[in-house]
Amino acid sequence: MELHNTKSSTSKIHTENVNSFHHVMSSVLITAQCFGVMPVSGITAPSAKQLRFRWWSIRTVFCMIVTLGAFLNLTFSFMIMKSGISFEQSDNIVFFGCVTAMYMLFLQLARKWPNLVIQWENLELSQRRYGYPKFLNRKVKLITAIILVGALVEHVLSKASGIIVAAKCTDNLYDLLCHYFTKRGTYNQIFVVMNYNVISASLTFISNFISTFLWNFTDLFIILVSISLTERFHLYNKYLVTVQGKILPESFWAQVREEYNCLSFLTRHLDSCISKIVLVSYGNNLYFICRQLLNSLSPIDGIIDMLYFCWSFGFLLLRTVMLSLYAASIYEESKQPRIILYSVPSECFTTEVKRLLFQITTDTLALTGMNFFYITRTLLLTLAGTIVTYEIVLKELNKITIR
Amino acid sequence: MELHNTKSSTSKIHTENVNSFHHVMSSVLITAQCFGVMPVSGITAPSAKQLRFRWWSIRTVFCMIVTLGAFLNLTFSFMIMKSGISFEQSDNIVFFGCVTAMYMLFLQLARKWPNLVIQWENLELSQRRYGYPKFLNRKVKLITAIILVGALVEHVLSKASGIIVAAKCTDNLYDLLCHYFTKRGTYNQIFVVMNYNVISASLTFISNFISTFLWNFTDLFIILVSISLTERFHLYNKYLVTVQGKILPESFWAQVREEYNCLSFLTRHLDSCISKIVLVSYGNNLYFICRQLLNSLSPIDGIIDMLYFCWSFGFLLLRTVMLSLYAASIYEESKQPRIILYSVPSECFTTEVKRLLFQITTDTLALTGMNFFYITRTLLLTLAGTIVTYEIVLKELNKITIR
Amino acid sequence: MELHNTKSSTSKIHTENVNSFHHVMSSVLITAQCFGVMPVSGITAPSAKQLRFRWWSIRTVFCMIVTLGAFLNLTFSFMIMKSGISFEQSDNIVFFGCVTAMYMLFLQLARKWPNLVIQWENLELSQRRYGYPKFLNRKVKLITAIILVGALVEHVLSKASGIIVAAKCTDNLYDLLCHYFTKRGTYNQIFVVMNYNVISASLTFISNFISTFLWNFTDLFIILVSISLTERFHLYNKYLVTVQGKILPESFWAQVREEYNCLSFLTRHLDSCISKIVLVSYGNNLYFICRQLLNSLSPIDGIIDMLYFCWSFGFLLLRTVMLSLYAASIYEESKQPRIILYSVPSECFTTEVKRLLFQITTDTLALTGMNFFYITRTLLLTLAGTIVTYEIVLKELNKITIR
Amino acid sequence: MELHNTKSSTSKIHTENVNSFHHVMSSVLITAQCFGVMPVSGITAPSAKQLRFRWWSIRTVFCMIVTLGAFLNLTFSFMIMKSGISFEQSDNIVFFGCVTAMYMLFLQLARKWPNLVIQWENLELSQRRYGYPKFLNRKVKLITAIILVGALVEHVLSKASGIIVAAKCTDNLYDLLCHYFTKRGTYNQIFVVMNYNVISASLTFISNFISTFLWNFTDLFIILVSISLTERFHLYNKYLVTVQGKILPESFWAQVREEYNCLSFLTRHLDSCISKIVLVSYGNNLYFICRQLLNSLSPIDGIIDMLYFCWSFGFLLLRTVMLSLYAASIYEESKQPRIILYSVPSECFTTEVKRLLFQITTDTLALTGMNFFYITRTLLLTLAGTIVTYEIVLKELNKITIR
Repeated sequence: MELHNTKSSTSKIHTENVNSFHHVMSSVLITAQCFGVMPVSGITAPSAKQLRFRWWSIRTVFCMIVTLGAFLNLTFSFMIMKSGISFEQSDNIVFFGCVTAMYMLFLQLARKWPNLVIQWENLELSQRRYGYPKFLNRKVKLITAIILVGALVEHVLSKASGIIVAAKCTDNLYDLLCHYFTKRGTYNQIFVVMNYNVISASLTFISNFISTFLWNFTDLFIILVSISLTERFHLYNKYLVTVQGKILPESFWAQVREEYNCLSFLTRHLDSCISKIVLVSYGNNLYFICRQLLNSLSPIDGIIDMLYFCWSFGFLLLRTVMLSLYAASIYEESKQPRIILYSVPSECFTTEVKRLLFQITTDTLALTGMNFFYITRTLLLTLAGTIVTYEIVLKELNKITIR
Repeated sequence: MELHNTKSSTSKIHTENVNSFHHVMSSVLITAQCFGVMPVSGITAPSAKQLRFRWWSIRTVFCMIVTLGAFLNLTFSFMIMKSGISFEQSDNIVFFGCVTAMYMLFLQLARKWPNLVIQWENLELSQRRYGYPKFLNRKVKLITAIILVGALVEHVLSKASGIIVAAKCTDNLYDLLCHYFTKRGTYNQIFVVMNYNVISASLTFISNFISTFLWNFTDLFIILVSISLTERFHLYNKYLVTVQGKILPESFWAQVREEYNCLSFLTRHLDSCISKIVLVSYGNNLYFICRQLLNSLSPIDGIIDMLYFCWSFGFLLLRTVMLSLYAASIYEESKQPRIILYSVPSECFTTEVKRLLFQITTDTLALTGMNFFYITRTLLLTLAGTIVTYEIVLKELNKITIR
Repeated sequence: MELHNTKSSTSKIHTENVNSFHHVMSSVLITAQCFGVMPVSGITAPSAKQLRFRWWSIRTVFCMIVTLGAFLNLTFSFMIMKSGISFEQSDNIVFFGCVTAMYMLFLQLARKWPNLVIQWENLELSQRRYGYPKFLNRKVKLITAIILVGALVEHVLSKASGIIVAAKCTDNLYDLLCHYFTKRGTYNQIFVVMNYNVISASLTFISNFISTFLWNFTDLFIILVSISLTERFHLYNKYLVTVQGKILPESFWAQVREEYNCLSFLTRHLDSCISKIVLVSYGNNLYFICRQLLNSLSPIDGIIDMLYFCWSFGFLLLRTVMLSLYAASIYEESKQPRIILYSVPSECFTTEVKRLLFQITTDTLALTGMNFFYITRTLLLTLAGTIVTYEIVLKELNKITIR
Repeated sequence: MELHNTKSSTSKIHTENVNSFHHVMSSVLITAQCFGVMPVSGITAPSAKQLRFRWWSIRTVFCMIVTLGAFLNLTFSFMIMKSGISFEQSDNIVFFGCVTAMYMLFLQLARKWPNLVIQWENLELSQRRYGYPKFLNRKVKLITAIILVGALVEHVLSKASGIIVAAKCTDNLYDLLCHYFTKRGTYNQIFVVMNYNVISASLTFISNFISTFLWNFTDLFIILVSISLTERFHLYNKYLVTVQGKILPESFWAQVREEYNCLSFLTRHLDSCISKIVLVSYGNNLYFICRQLLNSLSPIDGIIDMLYFCWSFGFLLLRTVMLSLYAASIYEESKQPRIILYSVPSECFTTEVKRLLFQITTDTLALTGMNFFYITRTLLLTLAGTIVTYEIVLKELNKITIR
């Protein structure tokens, strides 16, 4: 019977493990590796145990070349910055600074990734009776598609807006490209240092494209791991609801408590791995939201520029809100079991239930930005309030300036 | 004896249940249904069990027509918005956007309403020994009257202010109405798209009247359910005070704990039903408070305009403060029992008392705005602080502009 | 032995009860009654049981006349306010509005005062073994003297500043007084309505003097009750320190817990009596601090004006800071026993200790502003931060205006 | 065996106690004493028991002379302040005010220092089994070196910047020095009162140098004690990790709990000694950060001035961030053991574990600024947010001024 049970659950794994964390992340990570992020081998292997990070592998070397590209862009951006610091001049520095930092943080994460996924897989196996989150794979693919397509549209609009301006000032393709690469903001840091030629222009273009990908991928990555973890808590909560009101032995509650504890360890481990990335991502998003608000004060001419502004601002807000809500849902779900535990029948309100209840009410399980803040719904409200206040003050100040 | 007891409490219900939640809300909901809100049948039936929501009923169809009207107004408001976003242009968009959203949220609520009221009725029956809140019905009717009359006065003043301006520029009634409907802010979004005629003007007028009703009704509705729930907690607390210091068996405390737990489930269920409405309502109120503060900076001419400004601003503040205080009182009352439990005699400080005390001190029972914020008194203080700061900065900036 | 013990503690009461709450407050309340505040009889009686409030007594009638005076001032201030609301015009309204409100709140408090003091006296008697706070009487008298003398100096400077200006424009005493009363800010609301004559001028002068007293007395009163309550908690804590590390029976801890509970009930009772006064007092102080900061931006001429500004602003800050710190110390002291309880020896960590520890860590004992805020040290920091930010923004805005 | 054990641990102390708190602080305190700070004798003695504070010792007298120097500077700064208060004029007042306050606070601390270090040494001896923090001595020396060298560079740049300006206006060394001392900001408060001569100039120079040292030493001192305390908590946590999952007797947990309690007493004792210094230090740092931000708005000419501005601002930020992070780590580490305690096996989840867990989750162990704020990571985030908002508003206001 015991054997049969194991067998049936093993087969269950075989049919369902398309929704296991390891498999869910694989297609996303393959995409990421095309851009030099997360140089880990074995991401398509059936088990997380095959995951390996090696310093001397083609993936890691590619990752380092790409990081170097972002770093060179950062250096050149510093070089063209003359006197004083203004918002306008610091855009490129912040962008390439964040991208360089993220590349290094993802490299650091890649080293910890195998252990994290193995812990996650072990938890999935030990909590087999809760099954795997349904449709997780589909959900992950959908969100990936939405964000990457959105990012592509933004990138194309950005380039189109630049090329149109360049096209107005020039009359043939070569001049157009030359003018585009040397005069427009996102590239000119390079061509102040060296002369324009097709090869360096292509490299610049590719480096820029890759950087933009990473910029979007960071938010996407945090969203995806948040969803996956939330779904684990959700399965746990769904199971607890089914036992609500039943009189169950202490051993049952001991097991339930230990399972919660495993989830809590996993959350902490995950947080310790990605909390730096979370901090950089939030800082980055906040900076560019403020920048776009400043941009919104000056009049925008041309349909492409208008479309680009709306799309890029809307998309930035969407990403930040999605990131905050999905990451906050870990916290929400981790607090949920307390409602069931408050109403456990008196007969089985034993030490184990008490311990679990105490742990849930006193502990805070959530993603953090290096312990500076916990990502909860309140955080999003605080951010929104700050941004709205800032916008109102800017608007009013702008009125004075115009008069 | 047991039978007699049941009989007496049943007769008590018959005489007192005018204060049961189902009956208290009925007259308010009848008024609401005249404006297409909450299309539920059976609201005047003796028991909540007769409540029904049907997609294909005259109420639901009316509700949808009205929603469509608000949505059309919203669309037209978007169309006349030309370049850039300013506070002045966005008033209509925010107003009709909120109204449209609220109609849809109330439709969603209508579907959950029967279950909610049944749960509430069951709680009232199982906690029969606490009785029904005295004068609840009277209180609810009074507050309804105050808010609806206040809203009517505001609406009439708003129209009067517009008509007076129109009367100055025209010399007969037809021209006056034509000018009023096509030039004044609240309607012109329609007549930019189509020409003026009596039918469309009437429809616009009615649609506008209905929207204004809903705008006020939302706050009223949250206030009324808050009062009803607070009164349930209040009855519970009043009962606990009567047993203070008495030595009572564990079974008594077990029952008391389960009753608190029922109240806690009801609060959560209610919150899950209306938290979106709460969020929209707060957003809406805050937006219009800020707008009115901005208006207060420019000089206001004419006694009607002055009266309209004072009344509408005062009434808006009154509604927001009432909403916050009544909703916050749920939280206050839900925390109250802890004082009794702290001073339970040592002899009967059993596991049940401990559990109840732990639940009360660690759990937060309150209405929320989609979990972004809990409505407590602190929230009102924060809002007040933010608004005052904003007003001071605006005043100071205005001084500069004038000089 | 038991008898002897009682006797000695009774004699101790006889020698020490100069420091009991009832006696400590008596001299302060006598002063207050000279200005129509707190119309309670029996404040000099040996026991709190003689305290009485009667609607038809000379004290209450006097109180009502004085309240009427403040209310008339408020009405006249409203009448001279022409169009729009500015900071400058609203000073008198806020001042007399607060004073009127405070008179009514102190009248309300007077009705609850006897019960409160009796509860306090009972607590002092039941906690006889902790003794009475040493030097409380002296401390209270010192603080009373400091604040009342400070207030007198401020009032005299304010009058002097006005009279000097009046003296410059006139050449005899009658004209001087006439000019002073009809043109200077604090009185002119009266003489816009009626003509100047000596009697009305005297009444106005007295009414103004009494109002200024109450304005200062409110803060003083909150400070004094805070000190008295803090000292009770302090005696309790000092006693607990003496038993630290000792192994004591459960009955001892039961008694200690009940004593803490009595203190907690007293704190809540006190808070329910004075929380409205606290709210008005904080609102009032914050308003005038902001006003003085605004004043500090415009240049001040003349040594008397300069001295008056410095003194009144410094004294206002001193009062607010003292109020906050003394009231916050209730919270600080009420949390203190937890440190002793954490380190109770394992042998006597019984249910009673657990209960007490749980109560102390989960409950919040502090004065509140109608539950909108708890007075803790954090509150003072928040206020300071807000005021500093506000001052910086004003300074910067002012620079622009000047340029 | 027992004897042998003691012997080995004693020898361990002999080899390792270079990392004991008493020894770690000795070299830092010797440096401090050269500048008149912390006049305690016996800081190089092998045991903390030799530490003595005497009012009549050469150290204390030197300390008092130096304090007097700072106080004289403060008085002269007040005297040259003519009418009104501006940011520019108040720099010297804040600087010398803080320095004078800090000298007095360090004198106060010196009196409590022997007891504090003895308590610390006793804790180290009773928790011998956790050993001493490795490399603490080296770490402390490194941080001391970094901060003192950084401060020296800043001081030299500051003088260089002044001398260069003076050199431009004069042609010989005497004139140069005379001009430098009488016209440049940091000294002129003295030479407004007295004439320039070499002796007073030298004294002024020395007094200024000493003040600058203290200004930097305060932050350094808080950082060093924070590190030392954090390391104690860290040793404790590392030990707990080694027993994770093991089934251990109640007596073991009783001992562990008492050790945590000792750490908690030490933290509170330390906080009570230095919380005033923490408050002054934070106020001081915040003031000068705001000032530097204001400076950053006006254009800076000359390479030395630019270098000085960048270095002093960067160094100030570095110090503040280091201070906040190191002090916050006490809080972080003190909360850490709860994770181990949540997952103690059911068999040994006894009263002692419960007590310890309750204490850790409900108590807050951290350095405070006189209880106004706890130093946690959230504090740093709040400060950063406030400063950024302030900078943005200033930038925007500046734009208007320039136009």
